[in-house]
Amino acid sequence: MLEFRITNDDPETSARAGELETPHGIVRTPAFMPVGTAGTVKGMAAWELERLAPEMVLANTYHLLLRPGVDRIEKMGGLHRLMAWQGPILTDSGGYQVFSLAARRELDDDGVTFRSHLDGSAQRLTPENVVETQARYGVDVAMVLDECLPYPVEMAAARESVARSIDWARRALVHAEQIRAGSTGWRGGLFAIQQGSVDKELRRECTNELAGHDFDGFAIGGLAVGEPSEVLHEAVAMATPMLPSDRPRYLMGVGYPSDIIQAVACGVDLFDCVLPTRSARTGKVFTATGEINIKNARFADDFAPLDEACSCPTCAAYSRAALRHLFIAKEVTSVVLLTLHNLTFFLNLMREAREAIMAGRYGRFRQRIDEIRNST
Amino acid sequence: MLEFRITNDDPETSARAGELETPHGIVRTPAFMPVGTAGTVKGMAAWELERLAPEMVLANTYHLLLRPGVDRIEKMGGLHRLMAWQGPILTDSGGYQVFSLAARRELDDDGVTFRSHLDGSAQRLTPENVVETQARYGVDVAMVLDECLPYPVEMAAARESVARSIDWARRALVHAEQIRAGSTGWRGGLFAIQQGSVDKELRRECTNELAGHDFDGFAIGGLAVGEPSEVLHEAVAMATPMLPSDRPRYLMGVGYPSDIIQAVACGVDLFDCVLPTRSARTGKVFTATGEINIKNARFADDFAPLDEACSCPTCAAYSRAALRHLFIAKEVTSVVLLTLHNLTFFLNLMREAREAIMAGRYGRFRQRIDEIRNST
Repeated sequence: MLEFRITNDDPETSARAGELETPHGIVRTPAFMPVGTAGTVKGMAAWELERLAPEMVLANTYHLLLRPGVDRIEKMGGLHRLMAWQGPILTDSGGYQVFSLAARRELDDDGVTFRSHLDGSAQRLTPENVVETQARYGVDVAMVLDECLPYPVEMAAARESVARSIDWARRALVHAEQIRAGSTGWRGGLFAIQQGSVDKELRRECTNELAGHDFDGFAIGGLAVGEPSEVLHEAVAMATPMLPSDRPRYLMGVGYPSDIIQAVACGVDLFDCVLPTRSARTGKVFTATGEINIKNARFADDFAPLDEACSCPTCAAYSRAALRHLFIAKEVTSVVLLTLHNLTFFLNLMREAREAIMAGRYGRFRQRIDEIRNST
Repeated sequence: MLEFRITNDDPETSARAGELETPHGIVRTPAFMPVGTAGTVKGMAAWELERLAPEMVLANTYHLLLRPGVDRIEKMGGLHRLMAWQGPILTDSGGYQVFSLAARRELDDDGVTFRSHLDGSAQRLTPENVVETQARYGVDVAMVLDECLPYPVEMAAARESVARSIDWARRALVHAEQIRAGSTGWRGGLFAIQQGSVDKELRRECTNELAGHDFDGFAIGGLAVGEPSEVLHEAVAMATPMLPSDRPRYLMGVGYPSDIIQAVACGVDLFDCVLPTRSARTGKVFTATGEINIKNARFADDFAPLDEACSCPTCAAYSRAALRHLFIAKEVTSVVLLTLHNLTFFLNLMREAREAIMAGRYGRFRQRIDEIRNST
């Protein structure tokens, strides 16, 4: 199993700082994972990603499975080679994309059959083959196949789905242990996923079923699927403490800086979200004093950097006026520049959060972030 | 006037190595200028461009005039600030884009009136105002407004057009000298443009009319507009020796590596072309052993770098298989990576050409490049 050490507990909140040892290095938590959907963090050359130095990056099993395919990735020497990234990689199971992107989806107790959204080819995911795929990618952390429910959902459907996800998780673990005991050389971890929508008892039952097994970590699934922010915060506050405290906790698909800061206070260790990268492509920029959209006409003659407090190369070289022009002119360069800035913002936020925990002042840190949010 | 020194003449060919002093530094020639149409070399953050270290970059007066506009660029502190590039910049006059992109174009003896292809707004270029615009951009080298004729063209039309271009060039020079003598601080150079289609006498007459004036350099215009490669080579061989040998010679819009190598042998010093950057966006890659298209299925399992002989960061980090995947998946990152490689190829080619001239072995260098071309 992957070693996970909690090095600091915040005295006022449930926030903790930790270190997760993976085959490609130590992930210092709490950490935010930039998303590299199809084998690259959109717009970031490998050396830019290295300079950003995220603790771990996320890639999508589903997208990579359809293209370039697991055979080709394995032949290439693994996903790290495709991405030209030598740090830790976590992949999701592909389940979420099957339920949101794929066509003609048919679910049964042994897995899910669907058509590729790219070429219509028939595909099948099972608890076993998604672990095998991720192992062949050579990832540091693999996720179990689960069924991600929409919000809101009927209780009967939620119960049935959770039972299936628990069964799949156990099967995935058996398979992962077989692979790790074999000759492939794969030594990555496997995280289980807690489901149960926003129902406390269902999440508790699910957690109890999963917690007794040797998963390397536990994710909170089924959130950040469209529910209001208050519902998300309540669900995180309810769900997180149920998870084993000695294992990393990963809140999938979250999110906004304020949501992350809140979740860290509940004891969450890992996050991923397309927000910093996708926002860059719509002109949305995160700054120490709030969010702005660079398309806004008021930036046309604003010669200040995006964020006075930022140390990123974009802020060192370009004014808001220049970035607005490049964005309006649809220059690819603007996507590169804004992505780099937004990722710097998220990664620095996590570094500051971690330092605050280590210094035992996370409560004050969270309060300061809240004040910024409320003032904008 | 800008100082231009020829430091080496090749003994076998008419190739020469030189140094052009501009307000933003020395341009070592022969040199290839990457094209930064709307204020950025597409996909290249400022620090990537700095690492590539081109001697000079080109930007388009027309595009920048329409957006973000000369007032805004001037207010920003000039085009160098917009581009976040502190090296030399040359801008074209905008004439070429007016004749190729703008709508409802009306030419008269004092200039050209047209509608913006972006918003339909009425615009007018005159010999004087294009110099003024480029001076307000703060460029190192400005170009005179000229009329770029299509190929082929009727002789009568060509004669009339050349007479107009000569008149405009003289008016531009008078205006540039007024600006340089004034208080704006602009000290950039002004290049005239030789026209005359593929007619030797007309190009000679045009050159004779221009050469007696204090232009900082001379461009060969009206080529690379769709004529066959042999016609281009013949025209360059015919046109270049007419131009004053003590001033930089600039072959506009050229081109393919083999065209450049040929033109350098005729005594051309400066080049610009969208080829390395535009090609990157269609998957076309330049290598020491010829051109390839990364989309090609044969690269799907090719784990070699794009070019074994290349020192660029793309070739250091990514395999052809990885780059093909990223390109097919329409990842912006692939545009960045291929652009960086292609520009490295062009800039290294020019560095090697210059070294060959300085070592008095340009003839052999050209022969080697020709052999590569003929073998692919």
